[in-house]
Amino acid sequence: MRKIGIPEIEDIATGAALLGAGGGGDPYVGKLVAMGAVRDCGPVTLLDPEEVPDDALVVPIAMMGAPTVLAEKAIGGGEYQRLYDMVSRFFGQKIYAFMPIEAGGVNSMLPIAAAARLGLPLVDVDGMGRAFPELQMVTFTIGGISATPMALTDEKGNSVIFETITNKWTEELARSVTMSCGGSVSVSLYPMNGAQMKQYGVRGIVTRSQQLGAAIRTVKTAENPEEHFLEFTEGYKLFQGKISDVLRETRAGFNFGRVLLEGIGACKGRSAAVEFQNENLTAEVDGKIVATVPDLICLVDTETFSPVTTDALKYGKRVLVVGLKCFEMWRCPAGIELVGPRYFGVDTDYIPLEERCKEVCGNV
Amino acid sequence: MRKIGIPEIEDIATGAALLGAGGGGDPYVGKLVAMGAVRDCGPVTLLDPEEVPDDALVVPIAMMGAPTVLAEKAIGGGEYQRLYDMVSRFFGQKIYAFMPIEAGGVNSMLPIAAAARLGLPLVDVDGMGRAFPELQMVTFTIGGISATPMALTDEKGNSVIFETITNKWTEELARSVTMSCGGSVSVSLYPMNGAQMKQYGVRGIVTRSQQLGAAIRTVKTAENPEEHFLEFTEGYKLFQGKISDVLRETRAGFNFGRVLLEGIGACKGRSAAVEFQNENLTAEVDGKIVATVPDLICLVDTETFSPVTTDALKYGKRVLVVGLKCFEMWRCPAGIELVGPRYFGVDTDYIPLEERCKEVCGNV
Repeated sequence: MRKIGIPEIEDIATGAALLGAGGGGDPYVGKLVAMGAVRDCGPVTLLDPEEVPDDALVVPIAMMGAPTVLAEKAIGGGEYQRLYDMVSRFFGQKIYAFMPIEAGGVNSMLPIAAAARLGLPLVDVDGMGRAFPELQMVTFTIGGISATPMALTDEKGNSVIFETITNKWTEELARSVTMSCGGSVSVSLYPMNGAQMKQYGVRGIVTRSQQLGAAIRTVKTAENPEEHFLEFTEGYKLFQGKISDVLRETRAGFNFGRVLLEGIGACKGRSAAVEFQNENLTAEVDGKIVATVPDLICLVDTETFSPVTTDALKYGKRVLVVGLKCFEMWRCPAGIELVGPRYFGVDTDYIPLEERCKEVCGNV
Repeated sequence: MRKIGIPEIEDIATGAALLGAGGGGDPYVGKLVAMGAVRDCGPVTLLDPEEVPDDALVVPIAMMGAPTVLAEKAIGGGEYQRLYDMVSRFFGQKIYAFMPIEAGGVNSMLPIAAAARLGLPLVDVDGMGRAFPELQMVTFTIGGISATPMALTDEKGNSVIFETITNKWTEELARSVTMSCGGSVSVSLYPMNGAQMKQYGVRGIVTRSQQLGAAIRTVKTAENPEEHFLEFTEGYKLFQGKISDVLRETRAGFNFGRVLLEGIGACKGRSAAVEFQNENLTAEVDGKIVATVPDLICLVDTETFSPVTTDALKYGKRVLVVGLKCFEMWRCPAGIELVGPRYFGVDTDYIPLEERCKEVCGNV
């Protein structure tokens, strides 16, 4: 158990944005929301999963929608309270603690804001260890935990509760409503008990985000910042380049796109491309895939090592493309079926990042 | 209080399909569902609105979606019970009776089926006195009654509860979910108390449907069937013709279209067109509008006087186009704003049917 205040939020936002693998929204937007709540209501208590009773009701809070919309749409005042009321009325049980459902610039922050405003603790756990675009894409789905009852509310005051036969149906129906509400909404889904959270959650993700954020903040003081960055992230360098084109489309409630890179430094003369659906899905170098989901493909600024989310991609920006190993549970067959490359329409088997790198990126 | 059994259902379905004004679904489909339920569970008690206590919870049951889809999609077994459970759990109060929300071949029948299966009475009232395509289009909206909490469920077992800030938002969000569920779903909306039902409902609509149906069943025994039909429906003859073309499009969860008619009999040499969005919106004769919503524009077979719904329009079919006056409340300013021609994008003021007929249809 420890406290999360303003400095911790700063680092968590940065680290979670890196783990967002291009998605999860703008950490600047997320940070403002969380800091505002902590300034108004005081620091938030962060619980280790082991500190949560097995029968306690633990509830993730998140925004759903396209990250580009998240950045533009206001977050109203009453959403967290409405979600709290809807879920606790449904169960006839008080919510014990909130938790994030994914890492990412916005979705790491909103549960902190909700916890601060409603005076509840936050648990140091999530359901991805990164960000993914669709809501059935959580370790809890592998564990057979239902996404529903799911509560959804918009900034205008409309509210919806879903109960579905599968988590894929939750995604389908909630996505429709999200689009009708203007492209982004606040949600609470995968309500679970403490035992389920401990069994299937990605533990320590808030702390890991904070450590990554703190390391990024100080990376420039290192003798060799890039080497230091790869060391503390345990990252694989996939490419270094200048953004030469960004193709982008907001469709069916998602940001789809492809960013093209011209090599710089050691990669001069080579080219790379990264495909995304909110989050980065694949990285190719000279036409050959060097990393795919569920491993993390992260773009960071070559100078500051700040994460560059898909909504912030801009012509001319110089970035380092880094691969990070995903949470181990994603690499089991059920994980690959849920979030492997083929689910996203990429016609290749999943090969772990560290294998792909050996094969094609030895010289990068 | 009286009982509704198989013969009553037969007539109600026909009469309600006429009042459906082209929409409300195929009476054959609706009838099968209601008759099956009454065969399994016995006749249904029909209550006069005055027999319902002011504080009783009265709940409409309906299908939502495009009529063409209604006709093809199965109605599963558990929907009524699920809707009942969702609504009564929400209110912590048992449902006293069901009611139809609109007249129409399907939506007049499903509340009968639900009442039979759950052993509840049905109230002789609805919220339109006809059918309309969007769910905020009920007299209850004029009365300030909320469409929510609205319960929605599909035949697969997915369920959703909406609470919205306006009835137009209910339409918006529920329509999205309906489309995601395959184009038609079962719903319960406008839960209200007995007092509200009595104040704003269209009273006696089930009985009126039954009387119309019975009269259509026996119309051919009359000396001059057409004259007799116009007399008992209090209808205005707008046109008589052969369908020469049907333009049809299923879009945004609705059946949109236009049917063209070549005059026959007294109308030989003239032409007519009827525009629809699930229900018929306008009728034109020789390019001049002769009737618009909210008045009812009904097509019936020239031989049998059976109603022809928009999903059953076919090249070559001979039809009589008849106008019926709408329920009086629709003609007030709030009614015209909600369901007048301009709401549907038709650039004309609402002029009561009987005025328009005088002006342009004297000779038809």
